[in-house]
Amino acid sequence: MNLGGSSFALRCLHCDAIYLPDQVSYYCPSCELDGALDLVYDYAELSRGFVQGVQSSDYFDMWRYTSVLPTSLEFTPHLHTGGSPLYKLKHSGPGRVFIKDDSRNPSGSLKDRASALAVALAAEMGVKTIAAASTGNAAAALACMSAGSGIRCVIFAPTSAAREKLAQIRAYGAEVVEVEGGYDEAFAACHAACKEHGWYNRSTGINSYMSEGKKTVAFEICEQMQWRVPDRIFVPVGNGCIVGAVYKGFHELMLMGITERMPKIMGVQASGSDFMYRAWKAGDGPHAPQALPSATSASSISVALPRDRIKALRAVEASGGEYVVVNDAQIFQAILDLARSGGVFAEPGAAAAYAGLRQWGALQPDETAVVLVTGSGLKDIGGLLGSGVLDAAKSPLRQHA
Amino acid sequence: MNLGGSSFALRCLHCDAIYLPDQVSYYCPSCELDGALDLVYDYAELSRGFVQGVQSSDYFDMWRYTSVLPTSLEFTPHLHTGGSPLYKLKHSGPGRVFIKDDSRNPSGSLKDRASALAVALAAEMGVKTIAAASTGNAAAALACMSAGSGIRCVIFAPTSAAREKLAQIRAYGAEVVEVEGGYDEAFAACHAACKEHGWYNRSTGINSYMSEGKKTVAFEICEQMQWRVPDRIFVPVGNGCIVGAVYKGFHELMLMGITERMPKIMGVQASGSDFMYRAWKAGDGPHAPQALPSATSASSISVALPRDRIKALRAVEASGGEYVVVNDAQIFQAILDLARSGGVFAEPGAAAAYAGLRQWGALQPDETAVVLVTGSGLKDIGGLLGSGVLDAAKSPLRQHA
Repeated sequence: MNLGGSSFALRCLHCDAIYLPDQVSYYCPSCELDGALDLVYDYAELSRGFVQGVQSSDYFDMWRYTSVLPTSLEFTPHLHTGGSPLYKLKHSGPGRVFIKDDSRNPSGSLKDRASALAVALAAEMGVKTIAAASTGNAAAALACMSAGSGIRCVIFAPTSAAREKLAQIRAYGAEVVEVEGGYDEAFAACHAACKEHGWYNRSTGINSYMSEGKKTVAFEICEQMQWRVPDRIFVPVGNGCIVGAVYKGFHELMLMGITERMPKIMGVQASGSDFMYRAWKAGDGPHAPQALPSATSASSISVALPRDRIKALRAVEASGGEYVVVNDAQIFQAILDLARSGGVFAEPGAAAAYAGLRQWGALQPDETAVVLVTGSGLKDIGGLLGSGVLDAAKSPLRQHA
Repeated sequence: MNLGGSSFALRCLHCDAIYLPDQVSYYCPSCELDGALDLVYDYAELSRGFVQGVQSSDYFDMWRYTSVLPTSLEFTPHLHTGGSPLYKLKHSGPGRVFIKDDSRNPSGSLKDRASALAVALAAEMGVKTIAAASTGNAAAALACMSAGSGIRCVIFAPTSAAREKLAQIRAYGAEVVEVEGGYDEAFAACHAACKEHGWYNRSTGINSYMSEGKKTVAFEICEQMQWRVPDRIFVPVGNGCIVGAVYKGFHELMLMGITERMPKIMGVQASGSDFMYRAWKAGDGPHAPQALPSATSASSISVALPRDRIKALRAVEASGGEYVVVNDAQIFQAILDLARSGGVFAEPGAAAAYAGLRQWGALQPDETAVVLVTGSGLKDIGGLLGSGVLDAAKSPLRQHA
């Protein structure tokens, strides 16, 4: 593949056109679809460099895979990002279950992988301001990675965003622009401001580079399993960016000849926010423009119109996986089950992946599944308290001293 | 030193008597003082094994130092504990400042190091129930480490404990016994229950083994600095267990001949909870039985009568350090300064250490200081919101879409 001196190109997943990095901004010029551009590398060439890069890395973090990332180590933020633990879960049914605990990242979520890359790219471009529309984890991650970098961070948040989530974002020093309306209005306002002021837009869906940061979680899982792949991987799906990136990571390992098969990717949605499940079930592609009302307490996967729906549909279909739907009661129960059996405390959106494994049914005795925990339970203690699931559990004893 | 086949002994810091592990329970039989027993090893013998152990360890975690811990790898919990990052902070004054971010542990605090060891010891002893008196980080750490271990965890908490803190503890499946009164009443109730039922008591101060888990943070800092020691280390002080353990870790490195000097240990207290500062200033030893009323929003260092006051006083005096006092306004401002300059989000009790560095004054140009961040800011978002420090910072912009 001739990449004209660049280490990668961008391919439109809709029309298959290929562009060099300086030929496109966020969209494919002809299709103009959210989340349609995909970074592609010269995988045959990279194959050997990948393993060498991993072996020569001093740290177990996301940058040990720099050969398949669109940046160099020179610009990466200083915070230790990625390199999260993979645990074998005590599991009563058949098969083996592993937990990938990505809540252990600097700001408490997997989104740190994308934001670390965003800040590296902004630093490389010499951009002075970086912005994102988000109510939660992506914003906290961007604010965290921008802190101390000399790059100004502006977050566009719906007025409905929780004060607790905004507190973390503002603690890191990000400026918060409250936008009246929901996520869509915040997204539009961020897009307009970035266009007007020349800011770098890290919003999920529009920025194709963000998948590149997130895909490192797939490389890590594979390396932690001695370069074998699990049979299934359960991933929570909101905008679809994470599930798309997990697919991409495992697919690239195959393209480089490091692995020989794909894990079946199991996308898990909340029953109150199940756009991708319906699109997959209906089989008529990801382009339905109709947003569906979203109602789930799992805020990090509550999305009316998934921004990365093209990649999110491809991930499940091309890997032979499935979409699974779980309700909020199952999600909150999964928080307790995960914390009690493995010591990993997940936020609702992250625990959905484990609820999905339970809902989907028993693994085959020889199957291995990985559950991806994408965010920390400390981020949404209020949601856990409000769910009532702790009241239903054994009541506290009271002792008179 | 003849340890009669044991790998360590216990020395009373008050009367200097030495016991073998099976000769004592929690107290020195003659002195009966909280926090007076200290584990001692045959350091001359261990010296070579220590470096070999570190080099042969597969993971950067607290168990790479097992040769100087009172347990073997066989019994350690599965959660990745310790191995937290050390960052160089962008710092405007003279000298160099590093941040040791121990909020990156499984339950979000340095206490995970002690609780991981407690669960390992309980597993080794075949104990079925482990208990602790705590309102916060120590309880969450013990509940987290007990999860999935098959060991029942019982937490004795004052009725005044915050619901948010209890939610994390209960998510991990610990049983919570609410005790009317404050920490002292909870401590007494826990002690009585452990005596009556034969439970293992992990309460800070009474259990001398807990310093052993926490001291690994000193080994890590030293290893991360290529086996050099910083000139000063700033540590938040509540019960005094952490500052005592930091001293012990650096002291043991000297006893093994790995380093040649001690860092000056700087204990930082909240002005509303300054028992140790007053005891150090007065110079009449740690035995003043008079609890002082405690009033600070930094809940994890709010303590009326520090349980580990003997070790906490020794740490600062024997290292040539100082005690420093900061007020709550300085503590909350330090949360923002730390998050904004370094991307590390600390809870109030942890940010106190950084406030202490600022309050104490400028370092010498050739001095290196480490600030120990002991807990995650996500644990006390309510405290940050209540402090008003975010309101005083730049107000959010509002945009009408």
